Amino acid sequence: MTIVAGIHAVAEFLRATPERVLRLSVQRDRRDEALASLIREARAQDIQVSQVSRDALNRISEGTVHQGVAAHCQEFQPQSESEFETFFESLTDPLLLAIEGVQDPRNLGACLRSAAGAGVDAVLLPRNRSAPLSSAAFKSASGALSSLFVVGVGNLARRIEWLQDQGVWVVGTDDQAEKQYTDYEYGASTLVVVGSEDAGLRELTKDRCDALVSIPMAGTVPSLNVSVATGIVLYECVRQRAIRDTAE
Amino acid sequence: MTIVAGIHAVAEFLRATPERVLRLSVQRDRRDEALASLIREARAQDIQVSQVSRDALNRISEGTVHQGVAAHCQEFQPQSESEFETFFESLTDPLLLAIEGVQDPRNLGACLRSAAGAGVDAVLLPRNRSAPLSSAAFKSASGALSSLFVVGVGNLARRIEWLQDQGVWVVGTDDQAEKQYTDYEYGASTLVVVGSEDAGLRELTKDRCDALVSIPMAGTVPSLNVSVATGIVLYECVRQRAIRDTAE
Repeated sequence: MTIVAGIHAVAEFLRATPERVLRLSVQRDRRDEALASLIREARAQDIQVSQVSRDALNRISEGTVHQGVAAHCQEFQPQSESEFETFFESLTDPLLLAIEGVQDPRNLGACLRSAAGAGVDAVLLPRNRSAPLSSAAFKSASGALSSLFVVGVGNLARRIEWLQDQGVWVVGTDDQAEKQYTDYEYGASTLVVVGSEDAGLRELTKDRCDALVSIPMAGTVPSLNVSVATGIVLYECVRQRAIRDTAE
Repeated sequence: MTIVAGIHAVAEFLRATPERVLRLSVQRDRRDEALASLIREARAQDIQVSQVSRDALNRISEGTVHQGVAAHCQEFQPQSESEFETFFESLTDPLLLAIEGVQDPRNLGACLRSAAGAGVDAVLLPRNRSAPLSSAAFKSASGALSSLFVVGVGNLARRIEWLQDQGVWVVGTDDQAEKQYTDYEYGASTLVVVGSEDAGLRELTKDRCDALVSIPMAGTVPSLNVSVATGIVLYECVRQRAIRDTAE
């Protein structure tokens, strides 16, 4: 079971995938309109609501900020690769994201939030090189997981090759890349690949990319947070797409 | 006293502001080259190094990831407004950031990291509407605080007016703004103003801005993490500046 805590995250779950919400725990002595509205919404959907003490809710939400509510949800299961292949066929000019080796669940969640904001069609997560989709990840994803198509990938390099065969351009981010992310012309179908907080992309993964791009860094900070870097590159794709769409 | 934990953050502090590092605590049973190099660096600068147990280091670093090292540093003091006014005179075409009301120290730190990466000249933090520059903020700033000029501001609206009088264009971010952040032409001297995670900018602050811009959101996620939004808007300024510089 996965715990989703916080008003926004729970509201988004109730809206998008109520069938995954098993029950809500709400803080007994807390009264506010947003919380009351969540409770009404849950009851309208026949979801059980338990009143619990603040201490109990702190325990349930494992130390994440809960704002008086936590939802007990079915475990999040990424889609299988065959489901992805079927889904992929339905996409036109897909924008895809692969996240390799991000170890901090909060960073992973924030990357998913950036992906959802930018309108990414699907996110590829290597099964063995990724933080778990834990409560902390759900929380910082801020509801993104209820609407994003997330696929668990066994072998990322092989999946990249498959996507290239389908006409997708693959762009990896790499601090050392000479080409800046704004100097690259992103194809109509694009997979952006981002790497872990410390080590970046694996060599094997870099070798498979059609291009590697970097984000220019001023001053002494060596890199950006991975969710910030992800947002910046994805929104550059979005900016270029908007210009192309206007020109057509 | 402020605790700075983690290899990168401590290394950056030792490099940039060794006079603020009072002593290091390192985990007794941990051996790796990055840590050994930090210890040599500290000793070369006559900074005391204490070997402590892992449990003690966990306590010292208040639950943040420490990678075997924590620095005990002098409290971070933002610069005063009169120091800022002097510093401001030395700047050509400044890029400035104001962060209003960000309550999560990790988010604040990540905003500072985005600012440092984008080459922001100074960051304005309203004294009463900001998370403290705690260990968690230092950690997620990833060294940005050792090089950034950070100024504590008593009255943000008044400081904005002062900057406008100096020829600075002031752009606020606002989810509801009709103009997208890519459609705005950022002036040579720009202050970007970002607001809190939940409420965004205060009305009083919005009213003072020369323009308000939004980041387009796809899907169902209502907004981006504030540090991601900050990075995206700042890097759009950087992109436009680079184009202008090339054209000149």
